[in-house]
Amino acid sequence: MLYLIGLGLGDAKDITVKGLEIIKQCSRVYLEAYTSVLTVGKEALEEFYGKELILADRETVEQEADTILKDAQVYDVAFLVVGDPFGATTHSDLVLRAVKLGVPYRVVHNASILNAVGCCGLQLYNFGETVSIVFWTDTWKPESFFDKIAKNRRNGMHTLCLLDIKMKEQSLENLMKGKKIYEPPRYMSVNQATEQLLAIVQNRRLQGEEPEVTENTVCVGLARVGAVDQKIVSGTLQEMTTVALGDPLHSVIITGTLHPLEIDMLKLFAVDKSIFEYNDK
Amino acid sequence: MLYLIGLGLGDAKDITVKGLEIIKQCSRVYLEAYTSVLTVGKEALEEFYGKELILADRETVEQEADTILKDAQVYDVAFLVVGDPFGATTHSDLVLRAVKLGVPYRVVHNASILNAVGCCGLQLYNFGETVSIVFWTDTWKPESFFDKIAKNRRNGMHTLCLLDIKMKEQSLENLMKGKKIYEPPRYMSVNQATEQLLAIVQNRRLQGEEPEVTENTVCVGLARVGAVDQKIVSGTLQEMTTVALGDPLHSVIITGTLHPLEIDMLKLFAVDKSIFEYNDK
Repeated sequence: MLYLIGLGLGDAKDITVKGLEIIKQCSRVYLEAYTSVLTVGKEALEEFYGKELILADRETVEQEADTILKDAQVYDVAFLVVGDPFGATTHSDLVLRAVKLGVPYRVVHNASILNAVGCCGLQLYNFGETVSIVFWTDTWKPESFFDKIAKNRRNGMHTLCLLDIKMKEQSLENLMKGKKIYEPPRYMSVNQATEQLLAIVQNRRLQGEEPEVTENTVCVGLARVGAVDQKIVSGTLQEMTTVALGDPLHSVIITGTLHPLEIDMLKLFAVDKSIFEYNDK
Repeated sequence: MLYLIGLGLGDAKDITVKGLEIIKQCSRVYLEAYTSVLTVGKEALEEFYGKELILADRETVEQEADTILKDAQVYDVAFLVVGDPFGATTHSDLVLRAVKLGVPYRVVHNASILNAVGCCGLQLYNFGETVSIVFWTDTWKPESFFDKIAKNRRNGMHTLCLLDIKMKEQSLENLMKGKKIYEPPRYMSVNQATEQLLAIVQNRRLQGEEPEVTENTVCVGLARVGAVDQKIVSGTLQEMTTVALGDPLHSVIITGTLHPLEIDMLKLFAVDKSIFEYNDK
């Protein structure tokens, strides 16, 4: 049996009782290590589970799915994913290969950022399409996520923006030399994401547009959701460029139409409550 | 401290290790009993937690929030919610009252139907606004959810439809006599939900419209997601009116634009794989 087990968002104890019991009975346990991170490392998880973990990065999962699934018709194999197994990144591919090989599979769900963002008080059913904001480079500055946010806002919907993670990047030099030496991982902060958004707002104005999102649009910045030291801050897009949220992972929400109860909740986390006052009437 | 703890979707063991530890240390533990249900009852949870649970129905939470929060400045109180505390129904109101009373709060997240539906293979970030389908009566047949589904489809987005739950209904007779006698709970099935949708399709045609959703639109029916006996079926809207999914809770997804990997996953659950064939090219 292949078990896809969600680890939730905070630390080792965010796994479910069911998930922990299954891990303890598995012959091999893989830890997916490329789409997200917990606030604790592999060693802390190994100690808590009492099991050795095999790190599976993107290459392993895509190229060595057969290794992961080896003998899983007979032995139990667990594949651990931060958040929910079908959260921000799909693991459909592994499931499809398992089915093809005649390996039965089971999913143990957990919280993912997609539902945990509800903790800021915005109603989850008022969210439109989720977007990803990628790191801009000197030569590549995509703006497509902005148009999706704008579309959601026109429909009154909030937008959850997942922020880029760069794992196992190679410098151009190492890449050309074929050296598998990797740069330290990079995680986009709320400051970086909102600076990119503001740059797009300005670009659009230069093109004569009246952008749907402006410096004054109400946003929510979230860091380490689900962890003991999580931080939530609400404020304008401009304010988000300077809030200090600390360590990764960060996410940003660009709000759509705000309902009174949502405003009351956002005030709990406001940089400056006065931005909500015009909505109070 | 007030702890809002998600229980996940299946049975007693779907709570997180962290959530279970907190329950064991709390002075009072409330179980929210109106927005959703697990596949196990209150007694099974009490046995597993080793704690007595106080049932909190909608009336208790709205009218007796102060009782729930009594002395929570000094004692630890847990409020248990099926799924995630900020899932389909918000518990913002309880949080706001806690803050007002100077009671600190903490959230222990878990899976909710909003992210667990990813198990059918549809990508969560391709979902638009979530809708609720309510039980029609002889005199009240709202169609507004249909327009939201149509809007999502026009944007290429899938729609998760949460299906109505009727708890603590009173018959007209008991209501008039002021007797607090309640009817057995009712849970909308995928069959009922899709029959209502088909009726709307037909209404729209009578009004000369070409509806965005038709008998042939690809849908996914899900039952008891996260439980050992969960069922997932994909097929046309017409097919969904006759699939047998068994006990509650049910949900339906009306698909938008399908991507190749999504189609491969939906085929695993198809009533009749041939409906996907035109998409194979």
